[in-house]
Amino acid sequence: MTVDRSALEPSEDPGDLDRQDPEAEIGLRAEAYRNWGRWGEDDAIGTLNFIDDDKRAAAAGLVTRGRVISLAQSFDTDGPQKGWRRRINPIHTMTDTGTDAERGTQGFPHGIGGADDYITMPLQCSTQWDGLGHIFDHGNAWNGRRAGDVVTSEGDLVTGIEHARDVIVSRGVLLDLGRHLSPDTGELPDGYAITTPELEACIAAQGPSSAVGRGDIVLVRTGRYARARREGWGEYAGGPAPGLSLTTAGWLHRTEIAAIATDTWGFEVRPNEFDAPAFQPLHQIVIPNMGLTIGEMWNLDELADACAEFARWEFLLSAPPLPITGAVGSPINPVALL
Amino acid sequence: MTVDRSALEPSEDPGDLDRQDPEAEIGLRAEAYRNWGRWGEDDAIGTLNFIDDDKRAAAAGLVTRGRVISLAQSFDTDGPQKGWRRRINPIHTMTDTGTDAERGTQGFPHGIGGADDYITMPLQCSTQWDGLGHIFDHGNAWNGRRAGDVVTSEGDLVTGIEHARDVIVSRGVLLDLGRHLSPDTGELPDGYAITTPELEACIAAQGPSSAVGRGDIVLVRTGRYARARREGWGEYAGGPAPGLSLTTAGWLHRTEIAAIATDTWGFEVRPNEFDAPAFQPLHQIVIPNMGLTIGEMWNLDELADACAEFARWEFLLSAPPLPITGAVGSPINPVALL
Amino acid sequence: MTVDRSALEPSEDPGDLDRQDPEAEIGLRAEAYRNWGRWGEDDAIGTLNFIDDDKRAAAAGLVTRGRVISLAQSFDTDGPQKGWRRRINPIHTMTDTGTDAERGTQGFPHGIGGADDYITMPLQCSTQWDGLGHIFDHGNAWNGRRAGDVVTSEGDLVTGIEHARDVIVSRGVLLDLGRHLSPDTGELPDGYAITTPELEACIAAQGPSSAVGRGDIVLVRTGRYARARREGWGEYAGGPAPGLSLTTAGWLHRTEIAAIATDTWGFEVRPNEFDAPAFQPLHQIVIPNMGLTIGEMWNLDELADACAEFARWEFLLSAPPLPITGAVGSPINPVALL
Amino acid sequence: MTVDRSALEPSEDPGDLDRQDPEAEIGLRAEAYRNWGRWGEDDAIGTLNFIDDDKRAAAAGLVTRGRVISLAQSFDTDGPQKGWRRRINPIHTMTDTGTDAERGTQGFPHGIGGADDYITMPLQCSTQWDGLGHIFDHGNAWNGRRAGDVVTSEGDLVTGIEHARDVIVSRGVLLDLGRHLSPDTGELPDGYAITTPELEACIAAQGPSSAVGRGDIVLVRTGRYARARREGWGEYAGGPAPGLSLTTAGWLHRTEIAAIATDTWGFEVRPNEFDAPAFQPLHQIVIPNMGLTIGEMWNLDELADACAEFARWEFLLSAPPLPITGAVGSPINPVALL
Repeated sequence: MTVDRSALEPSEDPGDLDRQDPEAEIGLRAEAYRNWGRWGEDDAIGTLNFIDDDKRAAAAGLVTRGRVISLAQSFDTDGPQKGWRRRINPIHTMTDTGTDAERGTQGFPHGIGGADDYITMPLQCSTQWDGLGHIFDHGNAWNGRRAGDVVTSEGDLVTGIEHARDVIVSRGVLLDLGRHLSPDTGELPDGYAITTPELEACIAAQGPSSAVGRGDIVLVRTGRYARARREGWGEYAGGPAPGLSLTTAGWLHRTEIAAIATDTWGFEVRPNEFDAPAFQPLHQIVIPNMGLTIGEMWNLDELADACAEFARWEFLLSAPPLPITGAVGSPINPVALL
Repeated sequence: MTVDRSALEPSEDPGDLDRQDPEAEIGLRAEAYRNWGRWGEDDAIGTLNFIDDDKRAAAAGLVTRGRVISLAQSFDTDGPQKGWRRRINPIHTMTDTGTDAERGTQGFPHGIGGADDYITMPLQCSTQWDGLGHIFDHGNAWNGRRAGDVVTSEGDLVTGIEHARDVIVSRGVLLDLGRHLSPDTGELPDGYAITTPELEACIAAQGPSSAVGRGDIVLVRTGRYARARREGWGEYAGGPAPGLSLTTAGWLHRTEIAAIATDTWGFEVRPNEFDAPAFQPLHQIVIPNMGLTIGEMWNLDELADACAEFARWEFLLSAPPLPITGAVGSPINPVALL
Repeated sequence: MTVDRSALEPSEDPGDLDRQDPEAEIGLRAEAYRNWGRWGEDDAIGTLNFIDDDKRAAAAGLVTRGRVISLAQSFDTDGPQKGWRRRINPIHTMTDTGTDAERGTQGFPHGIGGADDYITMPLQCSTQWDGLGHIFDHGNAWNGRRAGDVVTSEGDLVTGIEHARDVIVSRGVLLDLGRHLSPDTGELPDGYAITTPELEACIAAQGPSSAVGRGDIVLVRTGRYARARREGWGEYAGGPAPGLSLTTAGWLHRTEIAAIATDTWGFEVRPNEFDAPAFQPLHQIVIPNMGLTIGEMWNLDELADACAEFARWEFLLSAPPLPITGAVGSPINPVALL
Repeated sequence: MTVDRSALEPSEDPGDLDRQDPEAEIGLRAEAYRNWGRWGEDDAIGTLNFIDDDKRAAAAGLVTRGRVISLAQSFDTDGPQKGWRRRINPIHTMTDTGTDAERGTQGFPHGIGGADDYITMPLQCSTQWDGLGHIFDHGNAWNGRRAGDVVTSEGDLVTGIEHARDVIVSRGVLLDLGRHLSPDTGELPDGYAITTPELEACIAAQGPSSAVGRGDIVLVRTGRYARARREGWGEYAGGPAPGLSLTTAGWLHRTEIAAIATDTWGFEVRPNEFDAPAFQPLHQIVIPNMGLTIGEMWNLDELADACAEFARWEFLLSAPPLPITGAVGSPINPVALL
């Protein structure tokens, strides 16, 4: 007899997951936390709608020291990418150089010389936002559109990242799960699935400045990037990592956060929490169904040090994407202003 | 007899320029406004040093409405570039699509599908910062280094844009020269050289909220981009345009601004103010000599409307570059928070 | 009453075309000249199968002078592309230069220095072969496969150009329609549709060395490229041009040629021969249905001069594609050996 | 007392090399085998000048079977490159797909659909020719020009690979050193330096069809690529490999060959034959001094089987570069016609 799982409340206990049936576990949560139509049928930004001007004005009021911290990793050939699905590290080439200028080969008048450059990169090669067109669930994209109506070879025709160009500035909250769960090292081990109770305990431990609510951008630090910097990239891109458990989908939904980012390659725990073949199941729930914008490969270490020093985990976060028309993601340099 | 121009004070009257001798006019100002060594011999960010935490904290205090305005143009193939020095508009390609996902060709389990993308672009193809390694003066780069010691085919080894990753958040001031000088159209004609007295008159007319001083990021709107949007790109990239006169170099220096940006391709007036062959002479003074960071091809129109509406020309400006190691420029999505 | 066009023999007289109904005219010929299954269900090279070792050995026997002529246009930024469907001219960038080497910035021992480079280009930006996965007819690809089973975002999984890597060497025949029809200028006007009788008359006029048969690679010179070199690219890419009439489909089929190339952007006459909206109808017939490999943007001018001088229009043609896995086209430098 | 090495005849015995002094050993041979001025001061193709029409006509006469063999490796992401000096494997992306065409998203009339693609690659990522601007000796390029006068950020302004567009078709000779020296495996071990006596013994053993002389293109098979295909790429790109000894420089010069290619990454033996730091010393002699065009990463295995089967090691070789203006190398698909 088959249980009608669609009638069940999705459990937030990873122990309850049917590890043989990712499709059912995903489906249960996709249905429970689906936001299709919540912001109208033409919506292109999903939960980013939770940010409003009042939210931003209040967030600006959090700035006391004026210190700015970049949350980006470096964009260069010494990056984590190893070729999976043609993802490479950025290729930066020069079309004019100082060597040429100094030698006088450029042909400009009155002693002026110049340097110019190019970049070729996957939009998700380093610190980035996943756009809402990045992941599909059974051929469905955000807001219930068919994937093929949204993202063709010409790009994302409907929910391209350019729609978020003037949105993603809000209150940021750092949840330093690495420090909270591993006070000695500040780093979670690979495969560690962060659960809803742990998120809530972290908030409680960090205190009121880390309360999470509507329109916030939550940054979850696992310590995985700190380890990569110390030990080398290894399997950072696509390999085992700490991350959010599939069972946090409910928390991500009911907190009404605008966006979430981690210091890992893939946001959710890897290997994924199934014995049957599975791949990024939490993405499948939160991007096309919930409309949640996800950030990956952020550098949260300096910010974590500052938050710990000041015992304050909230700040103004400015992380607008490059408005690349039709992109399903964007490289970014997010900055926290404390 | 040759006049010893190095002993002269550079005039701020364009009528005094010797239009046959760009090299002398540039040299006079390069010497007068040179900041080499001002922030130590290892400096990599020039006038961005004028921004400090107090400046940023005060800037955050300017935020009252919480409204965010993107100052970026769109990054896509419908851009202004026409191939000059191999500069093209961005090429965005997909490595996975929704069409494929919907059709089931991707080979992922449990109904998940994905879209991924690439970009190839000159770093200065659209809204951008010029890095300090972008322009040289007689083979010299910022802070007196030899150009060939700074920017080789491997990129900017010394003053790469990544050094500004956690700096460029400050008070922004919009000087809407377009509206000030052409109240009817809000647009200056091509070839219009904005002078120091005009900058000062604009500040006076706009009122105290547009006072310019140390650490500010000044945005000069000419209306050129509004015209391009209305009439098509035409010669926007590299052709005639309104812009700053060479004679504003002194003002750019003594105001101790951190950075400046315009809504034009090239910041300074074009054609340049010489009868002899000349090319971007103000760049030659302010980048390698003064260490001034310049922004170009910004979209200042929505911001101008808002500033006019609120009769307030100051705001928090967040415009950190992508930390592309060794880059001499960076595509950006600057945001103003009002 | 609707005529059952499928029962008709397709006319080779352009005057018989129903200029309001491209779909019917295409469908009639697609059906009549379809080669699906002719070389087995796994076939990936279509009419290239007409070339065999005997053909190549005989072609080598045509070489008497040992003169080699390149049939490629230059691959550089000064090319015909203007951005249609993101097609640009090649972007060539250096990752190491002689300037750097001479200045000693490269860090190599014993005085060695080097230069290295990159290219980014559409595979069809200049002289090229269309692969069999380049064009579809009502969602069908070559040999009757569904287009989505053949070419996804990962490339051509079935008929990629790499399958022709060791095939395209054969007897080449130049049909200089430009000289034949316009003896004074050697150039046909834009919109000139070359017909079957004209192809046959050209062969007759040029003499027995230009007889066309099984396994030959036919090169049709219109003079369009000569005009572009003289007058500038203008609308060379995608604009009006002389080229083959839709009504030559039968000739292309019954001659059993292996491949055909022209000195134009698009092989067939442009504007296309319909009053209703139409786009490259002959492609739709010959690529997915006939399995014919098409070459475009070849430089046939020097070859034409040599053929005219020697009164001999046959030669050994070597034009193997770069074996780019999954490509639907390939840049090439075809060479004729006379 | 310092020996005046410039007066010495360079030894062809690797045992005589001063393994502490690569610069002297290189300099000795650079001087002895320098061809500067041999083909005039404007020359751009070096030893390719040894190929003439008679040579090509005779080479065409070698074709008896009509069999064509591609000597290219595959151009795809599964290649040997690992990022050294920003060299990556080719990135092939689609701008239109069959999936889109089948689904009807492309907007073309009458049922036509299309697929289009891009490539981004280092010109030396796979099977390629080194252009004459690829290597410098103490800041000097081919024919005695200064490197900075030849190759700037704009490319090779003097000896770009486009100059060889209509040259590289000649008699090819395969010297299968792998089979000759290792009859059991057909493969030489890494670090094996092939010497002049071994080249000559191989020629003698293979018989008269492998005699090497003016204008020939010599293909040296070591078996290194066969091993890579069997065992994986490993350190194929830049790691240890069999290859030509520095001491073969004299043979390369006096045979007056037009070009040479191997099935290895770097043509010459690696590690190089010095205890002091050294890098590609034979390149430094033969490219800028001798003007020799070198091919690398060729696939010689099928050709070797055919030559062994037919006991004939000569053939018509067609290997024209893509005429990429200003390139210092070119990807190629060389074909042997037997």
